[in-house]
Amino acid sequence: MTKNDQHIPAPTIRRLSLYLRQLEMLWMEEKKTVSSKDLGKALRLTDSQIRKDLAYFGQFGQPGIGYDVGELISTIRHILGTDQTWNILLVGAGNLGAALSAYRGFAKKGFQLVAVFDSDPKKIGTPVPANRELKIQPLTDLNQTVRERDIRLAINAVPADAAQDVADRLVAAGIRGIFNFAPVNLDLAAEVPVSSVDLAVQLEQLSFQVRLSAPVDDRDQADHA
Amino acid sequence: MTKNDQHIPAPTIRRLSLYLRQLEMLWMEEKKTVSSKDLGKALRLTDSQIRKDLAYFGQFGQPGIGYDVGELISTIRHILGTDQTWNILLVGAGNLGAALSAYRGFAKKGFQLVAVFDSDPKKIGTPVPANRELKIQPLTDLNQTVRERDIRLAINAVPADAAQDVADRLVAAGIRGIFNFAPVNLDLAAEVPVSSVDLAVQLEQLSFQVRLSAPVDDRDQADHA
Repeated sequence: MTKNDQHIPAPTIRRLSLYLRQLEMLWMEEKKTVSSKDLGKALRLTDSQIRKDLAYFGQFGQPGIGYDVGELISTIRHILGTDQTWNILLVGAGNLGAALSAYRGFAKKGFQLVAVFDSDPKKIGTPVPANRELKIQPLTDLNQTVRERDIRLAINAVPADAAQDVADRLVAAGIRGIFNFAPVNLDLAAEVPVSSVDLAVQLEQLSFQVRLSAPVDDRDQADHA
Repeated sequence: MTKNDQHIPAPTIRRLSLYLRQLEMLWMEEKKTVSSKDLGKALRLTDSQIRKDLAYFGQFGQPGIGYDVGELISTIRHILGTDQTWNILLVGAGNLGAALSAYRGFAKKGFQLVAVFDSDPKKIGTPVPANRELKIQPLTDLNQTVRERDIRLAINAVPADAAQDVADRLVAAGIRGIFNFAPVNLDLAAEVPVSSVDLAVQLEQLSFQVRLSAPVDDRDQADHA
């Protein structure tokens, strides 16, 4: 990792995830090397874009041979921090939280769910359906559990009206990054990165685009307007 | 809806979802009107931005009074197409698919899951765990079910190596928008909008940012480099 991390453009970091995905696929196919040209073709990017992105992190690849797939996978995982296991916690054992706690894709990337919290007294002490080794804890346990289990990332899956309060408590407990599924813009005092997914918003955007691609329906509306 | 839909910038459409979220919150609090200034303050946007976005769709709001909350909610829902119920289908009854079929947030926005498909012969004919009225169907039923149930949107939650094939079959069956959870870039022949969520990529990006905000760890790495 370079000392200039702060100056790496966000789109470059985003593309690192894409490169990693593609390289892992090549690795499964037992491809040992790949050129920036072939990598670019698969991802619909220019080879110069790929070389420029990777140049932020050092010198990779050999002219005429390309990149060593295994080496580049290790390097990108190290840059992204997914070459280690992260303990994560989840707040909100409702419908969405239950779905997320059942999702094994996180563990595959090294994100290990080690604690689940909820404010509902009826849920506290009951096992997490998808992971019966875990019992749902009250939010009053938050600080202690974060410290004891060395948890740095949290998934916030509580309803909109509780999301800001929970986020503040997560930051106060020492959580350093929040994966936010609550449909609100969090306003955090400390410099804690937040990554947000709003599934309903995404569906709304898709719905709008589908309506656009249906000119007959739209003309109907216009006639009555 | 105006006839100029095609020329509305994507960020404007994205912000409509944010406005809607905020307006629904105000509605719950029984606020009947809101100024563009107050709306902007809540969403950390300028009031001129909000007025400009809404002007694409007509004249709203009255000077000195602001927007009628209920009216603006109806209008934005109509623009986004979420004032109607959409039948949606899900392909992929694995771990992520099961989680998504359990998520009630879609139904709240008018997206009704009416069919679930999988290619695994052992799963076909078995009930969907989260919605026992539905039975998992084989992909050979796709065309007929899409036609019979008037399904326009599909959630693609199959593994990466099957995602492109499934997407092609969805488009061939007449699906007009795909909500893609498979970690691949879909390459579609027809002009079918795709909205993608890659949970692992989002966690990777968050992990990177958390590493950045941990200067001590980074210095450790640099010492050994």
